[in-house]
Amino acid sequence: MKDVASAAGVALKTVSRVVNDEPGVHPDTAERVRAAIERLGYSRNESARVLRSGRTATIGLVIEDVADPFYSGLSRAVEDVAIEHGCLLMSGSSGEQPGRERELVLAFCTRRVDGLIVVPAGDDHAYLQPELETGTPVVFADRPPGPGLDVDTVLAANADGAAIAVRHLLGHGHRRIAFLGDQPTIYTAAERLRGYREALGPLFDERLVAMRGAAPGPVREELARLAALDDPPTALFTGNGRLTVTVLRALPGRQGHDGPYEAGRWRLPGGRPVALVGFDDFELADLLAPGVTVVAQDPAGMGRAAAELLFRRLGGDTGPSGRLELPVRLVPRGSGELPGPYAARA
Amino acid sequence: MKDVASAAGVALKTVSRVVNDEPGVHPDTAERVRAAIERLGYSRNESARVLRSGRTATIGLVIEDVADPFYSGLSRAVEDVAIEHGCLLMSGSSGEQPGRERELVLAFCTRRVDGLIVVPAGDDHAYLQPELETGTPVVFADRPPGPGLDVDTVLAANADGAAIAVRHLLGHGHRRIAFLGDQPTIYTAAERLRGYREALGPLFDERLVAMRGAAPGPVREELARLAALDDPPTALFTGNGRLTVTVLRALPGRQGHDGPYEAGRWRLPGGRPVALVGFDDFELADLLAPGVTVVAQDPAGMGRAAAELLFRRLGGDTGPSGRLELPVRLVPRGSGELPGPYAARA
Repeated sequence: MKDVASAAGVALKTVSRVVNDEPGVHPDTAERVRAAIERLGYSRNESARVLRSGRTATIGLVIEDVADPFYSGLSRAVEDVAIEHGCLLMSGSSGEQPGRERELVLAFCTRRVDGLIVVPAGDDHAYLQPELETGTPVVFADRPPGPGLDVDTVLAANADGAAIAVRHLLGHGHRRIAFLGDQPTIYTAAERLRGYREALGPLFDERLVAMRGAAPGPVREELARLAALDDPPTALFTGNGRLTVTVLRALPGRQGHDGPYEAGRWRLPGGRPVALVGFDDFELADLLAPGVTVVAQDPAGMGRAAAELLFRRLGGDTGPSGRLELPVRLVPRGSGELPGPYAARA
Repeated sequence: MKDVASAAGVALKTVSRVVNDEPGVHPDTAERVRAAIERLGYSRNESARVLRSGRTATIGLVIEDVADPFYSGLSRAVEDVAIEHGCLLMSGSSGEQPGRERELVLAFCTRRVDGLIVVPAGDDHAYLQPELETGTPVVFADRPPGPGLDVDTVLAANADGAAIAVRHLLGHGHRRIAFLGDQPTIYTAAERLRGYREALGPLFDERLVAMRGAAPGPVREELARLAALDDPPTALFTGNGRLTVTVLRALPGRQGHDGPYEAGRWRLPGGRPVALVGFDDFELADLLAPGVTVVAQDPAGMGRAAAELLFRRLGGDTGPSGRLELPVRLVPRGSGELPGPYAARA
């Protein structure tokens, strides 16, 4: 009533008169009061609904960094599913710090979120056990929980995707295929390394592995090191979207407009043409020259799947927890089809 | 106590014994209980702090779409400032729908956020008046509020930025400069049109204006229409990051690898080389051939400024509301420096 009075700019008594259909209120004023009631209606209904259900109609999402397009795509999909269920989203970025992940999760719990979706930074999630036991459902996405936590999990086909990339390059005549990836302590990076290694079999050479993350400095150093090998790589496999972009930016003669090279080929430091397949698709991959061949995940699909699992639990599903693996697909665009030294002649 | 007991896997009585330093508990068990207490400590402290202050330590953010890099950058910056103030972020995407914006704002208010940052989709914000009057501070970002709402606002130098882009192209010898923008009902689009028009002065020609948004179909139609004019444009000014990317993708002979054109020039349908300056920077703009010249906003700077204004209000500042205009800067990369027909000879 107080809110209505202040929204309509009238005295509390006037609101009461309008609501109770008492005389003595100017029609225009009554109209203003009714408009204010309507305007505030949504908020009140929502409050009532939430209070009735004993829930807050809010879910929490912990990701690594909302400014990374992979996670903003995932975020938006989670939000869309939440909206369909009349829920709002609280979200936070862990910045790959386990302590931050835990703080965010516990802060969400303090605000009594109905459920949680977590892209974990750490690998010890014992701190979540009490929340699970009090009935807050949790779904892990992109990376699995640490040992002992029994929750639904949605992952991409990381090892398979890496193997697909490597086999594609092998099929185009490459034998020396380098892997630039994130720190191997990160689950997805370790899995992609595993797929890369398995697909290469006896061709695996640890000197061709560089897992120092996507910062430009280390990437440049590793590219220089690889180019200087006696038997340098003729193809690169980059382990995620950020790494691919950093690597492209570090290669010389990019676009053929700032070096002595013709356009249409990516090259190692020193000038050797190099084939390239990246894990993760990224905007504009098709506009570069040559276009960048990728193994594409579906971040929105992952967000949607995780959110749907969460709402199934919130809807009362008490079945055993599951692990969903989402497929990836190869998108050839030119960079991954550069023929290697063992390519069959046409 | 119940949470600690379940986290440590012991009886309630055991927790009570450990807390009160009573005998009869195995040292290992006592250790487990203490670890659980510590582990749960953060959550409890936070609860206590929030309850003491009468606040929820949560702020709400409404943006257009978190999957758009402009807004995910802004979002991350708001989150970072919130964290510095011990606050969490609830956020939602309006999808450019005024009704959705209002629902999100009111749903945030129902959950008693301490303050709000709004990138408005609509231009009637009377519904916010009651919230303002109950003391919830609100800051508008990217676009101003509708008439009558007295709140702090952070905007980019939209008209100035557009004028900078146009003067840059004029300086490189262009006179026929087309503008491809968002619907003119969107504040930023209208402001950029204004700056474009003012900078062109008598050279302004409404046939060179195409404001039908960033969907690929309309963009292709408008480019074909512009190319077919008796006096077609020799330069394009694109009104935001999404438009720039859609336009680049719609131009023929992109990268010189799918058309009969040499690399290093963007071309209109039909093949005429065209200069291009975009409003908003975007990832990989520097890797295209030629690199894309932009007037760059700072989305993170805008998010930070808005959040800092909000926390100043939450800290007790009751001064008059202000409007902050953030500068933009030209980043020349090649596409905007293609000489036009009136370029001075070297």
